[in-house]
Amino acid sequence: MATRNQLANALRVLAMDAVQQANSGHPGMPMGMAEIAEALWNRCLRHNPANPRWPDRDRFVLSNGHGSMLLYALLHLTGYDLPMEELKRFRQLHSKTAGHPERNHPPGVETTTGPLGQGLANAVGMAMAERILAEEFNRDGFDIVNHHTYAFVGDGCLMEGISHEAGSLAGTLGLSKLIVFYDDNGISIDGHVGGWFNDDTPRRFAAYGWNVIPGVDGHDSAALDAAIAAARAEPARPTLICCKTTIGKGAPNKAGSHDSHGSPLGAAEVAAARAALGWNHPAFEIPADVYEGWDARVKGQGLETLWNNKFAVYAAAHPESAREFRRRMAGELPAGWSDHAAGLLAQVAEKKENAATRKASQDAIALLAKRLPELVGGSADLAASNLTLWPGCRPFSAQRAGNYIHYGVREFAMVAILNGMALHGGVLPFGGTFLVFSDYARNGLRMAALMGARAVYVLTHDSIGLGEDGPTHQPVEQAATLRLIPGMDVWRPCDTVETMAAWLAAVERGDGPSCLLLSRQATPFQSRSPHQIPQILRGGYVLEEAAGGAPKIVLIATGSELGLAAQARQVLESQGIPARLVSMPSTTVFDRQDEAYKRRVLLPGVPRVAVEAGVSDFWRKYVGLEGGVVGLDQFGASAPATDLFRHFGFTVENVVNTAKSLLVDFS
Amino acid sequence: MATRNQLANALRVLAMDAVQQANSGHPGMPMGMAEIAEALWNRCLRHNPANPRWPDRDRFVLSNGHGSMLLYALLHLTGYDLPMEELKRFRQLHSKTAGHPERNHPPGVETTTGPLGQGLANAVGMAMAERILAEEFNRDGFDIVNHHTYAFVGDGCLMEGISHEAGSLAGTLGLSKLIVFYDDNGISIDGHVGGWFNDDTPRRFAAYGWNVIPGVDGHDSAALDAAIAAARAEPARPTLICCKTTIGKGAPNKAGSHDSHGSPLGAAEVAAARAALGWNHPAFEIPADVYEGWDARVKGQGLETLWNNKFAVYAAAHPESAREFRRRMAGELPAGWSDHAAGLLAQVAEKKENAATRKASQDAIALLAKRLPELVGGSADLAASNLTLWPGCRPFSAQRAGNYIHYGVREFAMVAILNGMALHGGVLPFGGTFLVFSDYARNGLRMAALMGARAVYVLTHDSIGLGEDGPTHQPVEQAATLRLIPGMDVWRPCDTVETMAAWLAAVERGDGPSCLLLSRQATPFQSRSPHQIPQILRGGYVLEEAAGGAPKIVLIATGSELGLAAQARQVLESQGIPARLVSMPSTTVFDRQDEAYKRRVLLPGVPRVAVEAGVSDFWRKYVGLEGGVVGLDQFGASAPATDLFRHFGFTVENVVNTAKSLLVDFS
Repeated sequence: MATRNQLANALRVLAMDAVQQANSGHPGMPMGMAEIAEALWNRCLRHNPANPRWPDRDRFVLSNGHGSMLLYALLHLTGYDLPMEELKRFRQLHSKTAGHPERNHPPGVETTTGPLGQGLANAVGMAMAERILAEEFNRDGFDIVNHHTYAFVGDGCLMEGISHEAGSLAGTLGLSKLIVFYDDNGISIDGHVGGWFNDDTPRRFAAYGWNVIPGVDGHDSAALDAAIAAARAEPARPTLICCKTTIGKGAPNKAGSHDSHGSPLGAAEVAAARAALGWNHPAFEIPADVYEGWDARVKGQGLETLWNNKFAVYAAAHPESAREFRRRMAGELPAGWSDHAAGLLAQVAEKKENAATRKASQDAIALLAKRLPELVGGSADLAASNLTLWPGCRPFSAQRAGNYIHYGVREFAMVAILNGMALHGGVLPFGGTFLVFSDYARNGLRMAALMGARAVYVLTHDSIGLGEDGPTHQPVEQAATLRLIPGMDVWRPCDTVETMAAWLAAVERGDGPSCLLLSRQATPFQSRSPHQIPQILRGGYVLEEAAGGAPKIVLIATGSELGLAAQARQVLESQGIPARLVSMPSTTVFDRQDEAYKRRVLLPGVPRVAVEAGVSDFWRKYVGLEGGVVGLDQFGASAPATDLFRHFGFTVENVVNTAKSLLVDFS
Repeated sequence: MATRNQLANALRVLAMDAVQQANSGHPGMPMGMAEIAEALWNRCLRHNPANPRWPDRDRFVLSNGHGSMLLYALLHLTGYDLPMEELKRFRQLHSKTAGHPERNHPPGVETTTGPLGQGLANAVGMAMAERILAEEFNRDGFDIVNHHTYAFVGDGCLMEGISHEAGSLAGTLGLSKLIVFYDDNGISIDGHVGGWFNDDTPRRFAAYGWNVIPGVDGHDSAALDAAIAAARAEPARPTLICCKTTIGKGAPNKAGSHDSHGSPLGAAEVAAARAALGWNHPAFEIPADVYEGWDARVKGQGLETLWNNKFAVYAAAHPESAREFRRRMAGELPAGWSDHAAGLLAQVAEKKENAATRKASQDAIALLAKRLPELVGGSADLAASNLTLWPGCRPFSAQRAGNYIHYGVREFAMVAILNGMALHGGVLPFGGTFLVFSDYARNGLRMAALMGARAVYVLTHDSIGLGEDGPTHQPVEQAATLRLIPGMDVWRPCDTVETMAAWLAAVERGDGPSCLLLSRQATPFQSRSPHQIPQILRGGYVLEEAAGGAPKIVLIATGSELGLAAQARQVLESQGIPARLVSMPSTTVFDRQDEAYKRRVLLPGVPRVAVEAGVSDFWRKYVGLEGGVVGLDQFGASAPATDLFRHFGFTVENVVNTAKSLLVDFS
């Protein structure tokens, strides 16, 4: 029977050897956290390697994702579908063992980490999703949702600002089933952290209202067991277990130094470590008793069977709730959804309302929430501006889980928390801020796209239409730059109907995030035939065909500038210039349409003018070098919105003149 | 003689009235911080309204910039060039009183604020610049640099993650001349902050090593005076003065509620506040004794005269230092700079080195630092990866100011601190991180561009060439999206010479920031004629002309893909296709060239192919709809770099085929 020490050392040698073989990677953190990982994964974690998607498994997040080999070693040893061959191919093309852990790749990786601090916020989101689902679905005697969320964080995570945002909110909300291990090894890439990181971290997290367990020896398994037990017994606060560790522990010459952080130890040091650890097995060979000591499959299957039995009794007593829980965890929309969605679009179209698209979004949320109890909303302290509240939403507090989260002024944590909730499953999270402050959360948005997380970002005040708050608050480049994130869907709807369509697309999108760019100011309702309405979901479509003959110009517009382009089109027609108006609420969705459709809409050979209150360069991909763009290639200004639109050339006259300048006959 | 109470109330009514007139703005914060502002600006601040650029003035940062009217009222009343007419035109087009304070607009505004939390980090940067200059220039008996930096911050600033990064670093570095006033009014936009912000803020800042003065009544002038005195006496730590305030104080019905936060109080409440304050003067009329009580011109001129006298004696004793100090504060480059710069370029060209451009950057820094002692470098915990250290740089510590800052893993604070240092003047700051993590700092980069701050961002590992760390660490869209920030110069040099040129351009750019996008991997040296070298500074130029006749294709490439394009060009030529190679290290600079030059380089009418390991859409502005782009429109992967370039199509064959597909004769 292998000792705990041997089990921990197996993690060490796998990390050393895989990094050595790859000639790339971070051996020091896995070696330093080996006892912590053993105490958590071998003694405590409720999971089933044979079914990594078991809904009530404990969630585990490696926020210090550069220690990916620790996670791969744990997955391999405990019995996940991650053969030793993959560990040998660490950091190679098409392997399952990327340099930083990638969600579901291999199975068992709950979230993609590497950009520091975000994993902690993902974990906060997972713990919030757990509380929401527990409160909604658990019944007396049936705690079908009852799991912990564990995270490992390093010095780097705790230096990042997002750790403050996420830590502060987790404390306020009293997320007692969140347990975080701080790998306090005193080393970051530049060396000993004393010169740049002198926080009293226990005191800092106490200031957030956390249960802090300071001064744990991270290499003392008994001390770790006791700390974990205390953390699990805490009823009201998240717990931070501060573990003093030695980076690269086991490497006789490089332990405790940043030499073990980000590069292979070297063959000599690996051999010396083997000797020091008393580990006599060749690289990538694990003795049977060590495998046996780690194998979590039998225990995991047992845990899941117990849960399945409980769920079966629950389902008999509460069949509706059980069905709903299954649907929610599968991420499926309710039965009959597509008819319902078509009905919602028709209902909005019928009202013919002129409204700010942020208001149209709020109305859409209210309609959607009636059939989608999985919606969990929120805003970064702009609820009344983003218009993210809806009738019947309930604030999430320390006392009671709710489906509306006041994130405070914490855009980055909000987005990473949304990602964590989406990855947990069972909820469909959205959150709001001003479009310009998507900058604050930008890498979280990117991570959602990289992971394919279904989250919705309500980004209002989407142009100089924001007005008096001025250039610091006026997005100019954000619409364009969000569209350049691979996998991100970006919608900028022009009226109530397109706003509902954008929401439907975001909700129906199973494999990725969506940004909804919404106006502060009112936009005019656009009439559409029943044939046109479903075309909105193709991202771009002909809203008004040229009336006086074959189109001589194609106007393309989005959002609040669509109305302007529509007026310009009328003027052009009145001057004998047949003009087509294309509404392009989502370039990202339009780009995925077949070539034939795109050509039908854009009419190659006919000059094009794009109109959007943002940087013009982006539109060259649609209008070419010869086309026109009525855009904004400088920062805005502080003034009433109507003054700004006029000042920056968003006038019917300017659009008309830009169009005419492209026509030989009229220029 | 006006009482202090009346002086404070003048701030209140000006804010109320200006917001009322604009029908837009935030009256509550100015009203709540009126006594704090009076205690600081009227009793303590060392400044000269007649010379807002006096080098040794105290710096003041309104981090909670939505309270802009407080600052405008202070500038107006103390005697800056900001007439009452401008206050009446609050938030109107072309006024000097924008919705959020904008640097130098009006004079006296030290930094642009509004995006929360960044002002605090700017202030940290200013305090660091002060320490650097003091240590460099002060001599026994001549403390020509000796000023404080003061900042106001609100709940929102302290919720933002950047407040953690900046606060933690300021504590570590012991910035004792930084004094921050926390406006603890318990209100943010969503309402009473208890539901989302329960931090024990004094405890949190104590954990950072700050001197914390808790529980000050923000409406008690004597208590404020005492707190400020204590803060100024603190020898080793930055100070946080926690002021309990009532938002909208003075408004009888809306004080203490978020109703006073972000909208006009309304005529009735303004009248009621006037009555409650005992303020009987009409809107925008300030009685003479109040003006007199505020006027800081005589005292300010006196302070500056004292300093001028001191400086004159200093200059007599240390003429070299005095000249250098004047040069540095004026932001001028040393005499003979342009010859020196040309010499540096020639020197690098002569070496003909193949090197990673990050290494070329390090060599450039070392050469530049010999003549530019104002260089202040640093990195967000990636010194040995970004290669930002140079011979003779000295770490900045609590004990001693140095010209190299270990920022820790704090990208956003780093960028905002660089901005603060640049705004302070006297230093030329740069800082490094991986290009992908520019996302973390993105709004700080935008703010630098908006303010025209001269800072340099060393962004290395600029593509999939980063290799094994994988997609979380590989920029794909960042080069393109940075170029879309108005006013941001972005350089992606292809070899040692272009890297030196990029550094020179960044250093010589007086009115804005520059991003240097640098490779991890080696790049081949490119030969250039003496005629070509200065053309690099035009952003794009013909590196290799078509040899076998008039060009049939123009290849455009940047950075590490330039070498690939050069190889492809040779293959094309060998196949009888004359091909021109354009190196485009900076599209942003190239775009500013005259049309004739741009046409000479790009040859309208000849098909173009752009080659860059990033999103392809950006390049449509150069190649048009018909051109070709060898780009990367998906996330990268974890593997050795050479495998990745091959996998994603960055091969000579693919570039050649893309070019040939555009040529009717060959496709």
